[in-house]
Amino acid sequence: MIDNSYFYKKRKNIFTKDIIELLGSADKITKKKIFDIKTLTSASKNDISFFHSTKYLNDLNNTKSKLIITLPKFLKIIPKDIEVILVKNVLLSVAKITEYIYPESLNDTFESKNLLDVKKYSFNHVTFGKNTFIGENVKIGKNTSIGHNTIIESYVQIGNNCDIGSNVIIKKSIIENNVKILDGSVIGKKGFGFFPSNKINIRYPHIGLVIIRSNVEVGCNNTIDRGSLSNTIIGENTFTDNQVHIAHNVKIGKNCIIAGQVGIAGSSIIGNNVIIGGQAGISGHLKIGNNVQIGGGSGVINDIPDNTKVMGYPALEIKSFIKKNKNDF
Amino acid sequence: MIDNSYFYKKRKNIFTKDIIELLGSADKITKKKIFDIKTLTSASKNDISFFHSTKYLNDLNNTKSKLIITLPKFLKIIPKDIEVILVKNVLLSVAKITEYIYPESLNDTFESKNLLDVKKYSFNHVTFGKNTFIGENVKIGKNTSIGHNTIIESYVQIGNNCDIGSNVIIKKSIIENNVKILDGSVIGKKGFGFFPSNKINIRYPHIGLVIIRSNVEVGCNNTIDRGSLSNTIIGENTFTDNQVHIAHNVKIGKNCIIAGQVGIAGSSIIGNNVIIGGQAGISGHLKIGNNVQIGGGSGVINDIPDNTKVMGYPALEIKSFIKKNKNDF
Amino acid sequence: MIDNSYFYKKRKNIFTKDIIELLGSADKITKKKIFDIKTLTSASKNDISFFHSTKYLNDLNNTKSKLIITLPKFLKIIPKDIEVILVKNVLLSVAKITEYIYPESLNDTFESKNLLDVKKYSFNHVTFGKNTFIGENVKIGKNTSIGHNTIIESYVQIGNNCDIGSNVIIKKSIIENNVKILDGSVIGKKGFGFFPSNKINIRYPHIGLVIIRSNVEVGCNNTIDRGSLSNTIIGENTFTDNQVHIAHNVKIGKNCIIAGQVGIAGSSIIGNNVIIGGQAGISGHLKIGNNVQIGGGSGVINDIPDNTKVMGYPALEIKSFIKKNKNDF
Repeated sequence: MIDNSYFYKKRKNIFTKDIIELLGSADKITKKKIFDIKTLTSASKNDISFFHSTKYLNDLNNTKSKLIITLPKFLKIIPKDIEVILVKNVLLSVAKITEYIYPESLNDTFESKNLLDVKKYSFNHVTFGKNTFIGENVKIGKNTSIGHNTIIESYVQIGNNCDIGSNVIIKKSIIENNVKILDGSVIGKKGFGFFPSNKINIRYPHIGLVIIRSNVEVGCNNTIDRGSLSNTIIGENTFTDNQVHIAHNVKIGKNCIIAGQVGIAGSSIIGNNVIIGGQAGISGHLKIGNNVQIGGGSGVINDIPDNTKVMGYPALEIKSFIKKNKNDF
Repeated sequence: MIDNSYFYKKRKNIFTKDIIELLGSADKITKKKIFDIKTLTSASKNDISFFHSTKYLNDLNNTKSKLIITLPKFLKIIPKDIEVILVKNVLLSVAKITEYIYPESLNDTFESKNLLDVKKYSFNHVTFGKNTFIGENVKIGKNTSIGHNTIIESYVQIGNNCDIGSNVIIKKSIIENNVKILDGSVIGKKGFGFFPSNKINIRYPHIGLVIIRSNVEVGCNNTIDRGSLSNTIIGENTFTDNQVHIAHNVKIGKNCIIAGQVGIAGSSIIGNNVIIGGQAGISGHLKIGNNVQIGGGSGVINDIPDNTKVMGYPALEIKSFIKKNKNDF
Repeated sequence: MIDNSYFYKKRKNIFTKDIIELLGSADKITKKKIFDIKTLTSASKNDISFFHSTKYLNDLNNTKSKLIITLPKFLKIIPKDIEVILVKNVLLSVAKITEYIYPESLNDTFESKNLLDVKKYSFNHVTFGKNTFIGENVKIGKNTSIGHNTIIESYVQIGNNCDIGSNVIIKKSIIENNVKILDGSVIGKKGFGFFPSNKINIRYPHIGLVIIRSNVEVGCNNTIDRGSLSNTIIGENTFTDNQVHIAHNVKIGKNCIIAGQVGIAGSSIIGNNVIIGGQAGISGHLKIGNNVQIGGGSGVINDIPDNTKVMGYPALEIKSFIKKNKNDF
């Protein structure tokens, strides 16, 4: 499996004392090596993790992490075998640690070095347009085509039989086989996550990727942002129409159909076989079940269970929507 | 008149037996040559057509086609002088036949061959930006300018006094005189039409064009998809603002004003002198009359008669909308 | 301070008789030199101005202009010391005068001359991508980077420590320090303002600029149009997400957060510390106060006072919205 550290330069030899010092903490923590920072569910025993909301209580009780950043008020509910660093602002501390471990993670400037003019470069069985530029260590499969003026930044992986359009920008992404990404789309930019501050907003480091599974089609002028700590994922055989916006950490299942101008806010999870009508919007941190149908123009602000059809703003189960607007039909 | 076969390579010498074989049909059909596949209204006597919904009963009774694909349940209502091939899925069969007649119609990969670097090429009285690429057999009128990094694919026709911006992509399109297409727009890509399937979606071939009439202005970052069997048409002197999405087969009349971020779904027909406010959405297969005004942010899910002003979601005639929301004004 | 005439070629030696002749007016006006055309609030004593709605009565009584275009019905309320030219259509007359003073103001064709291939050009401490083109008299500060295929037209000013992405187009704009403009955005195009006419729409000349203050971040595929007579302004430390559309003359305050796919129509004014959720739309000519929060997907059609939270379409104060939809929560 490809690790994030394949894409992001990672600091070596990080010890608990470095973290303590970085956060200005007075907590006494066993001296040991820290491997990475991860969410509760994805952390291994040598990773540091964090707990900032009781919404994740179940994840806390099942995590493999042995060192957690949290608030004083949560101290009582942390399992006994986990050491704790107490902070005032958990996510801000996570941002600091992430940036410490991945020193270049806040730099999202376009890649200006190491770009290869593909005319001078050799990929086998790949068709390139004019003015296409490819970064270092890019992998591109057979029978794939990459359009005019398209930029593929370093370490991006693209599978076989893919069709990447013109004026496309792809960074920090893994694209499987038989994927189409149409003209003008921007894949893998940092998400819109930051800590607002009246002097100057503090950017949240984004060390996640965009992963696009096989047989996906992404329409024109889409924007798919990469994840912050986890990845943004588009499941197999899902199709998006033009001008769709998919924010950081969103995970979309298989066989979904997402019509034009839909927007999905950060960290929402969409099931399999979901159909989303044009211009619908889905708020952040929601869970949309399998086989859900969302009417065009709807505004979804709550979780939706499996096999449900919704419409309206706020989106209601279809029968309730029709009843509410019965005089309009 | 420009025929689709000017833009799409078309198979010659197609006979009824080829179609029968392609569809795996057992129907007995008179042996004859088939010229093309068309909708009921546009078909000539040597074209094959199709009937899949009683919504088109009137078209069926007036069609010139003498050979129609349909469902067994419609057999009784087909006029006596029309031969019939019965299938289980009409549109899927139409897709198969279309792809058979137009073997390259499913390929929407960017054009990588035959592009001319315009610096080396000569058009009279045309101004080109940097890195502009032009396909084969492109026609461009006098006093027209084509911006930087813009790609005009083969066979596209552009009239006199047109202003095409930078980073624009145009394919499978006919653009008349005095048209402006602003930066970042993508004109003529295939529409978002396919047959969903849990293994791998089956793409509908798009052999239509985009036709943009005189004096039209298309804003920045618009996406206007070409038609499937018919054309997508933008009528004379219609203006669109930025980030507008116009899906396949949409036909827009004259003198319309379409504000920013509007989306019009597939096959809807918009009359003349229609004003559509920002972010409004119009569902597919609707008929919007002449002189209609649609309030910003509205969601239109029903036909709208001439001279009507609507607002809301679902969009209501303006008096009903105000009455419904009377406590909010 | 940078004047518009730095960006737009301006006619010299304009006298009242030229304006009278241009408008075909019979009014007797003191012969004198006219410097510019301005709004009531920004006009100096040698500028011509205009009054077309009692909404601006207060501005009329405080203007420094001594020559005003107006309708006959307003003659009585014009202060005694101001001379008047009476017309049938004020804004159309303003457009004519603007075009007369700024003869190239209707031309928004991409810049084809004078572009410098930056590889051959020297800016100090600026990093350029591939195929970047820069117009004449462009200023770019230290430690700024300009991405691939990006076009910076003549006279644009960009500060220090800025990050301009790839496929970006910037014209008629002043960008301060530490600003990020992400991939695919179009900054400074003319606004969507014109006089509809059934033969051929008459374009309103746009002689304003886009001004982006320090520490701003503009997301991917944004469109920010320049002002017509005044400027479009994005205040310090305001962040916009992807696919946001900001129309001409909009003024946004400091520290605002504008989520994905938001649209703000022409001439609206947004205060400081305003948070706008994804896909929300704001109609034109509105005033949104400080510290306002607008829920995702809302449609704002009225002014909003300071410190208010609104949601819905039409957007209501949050308590009213919840009460109205109480059965839905």
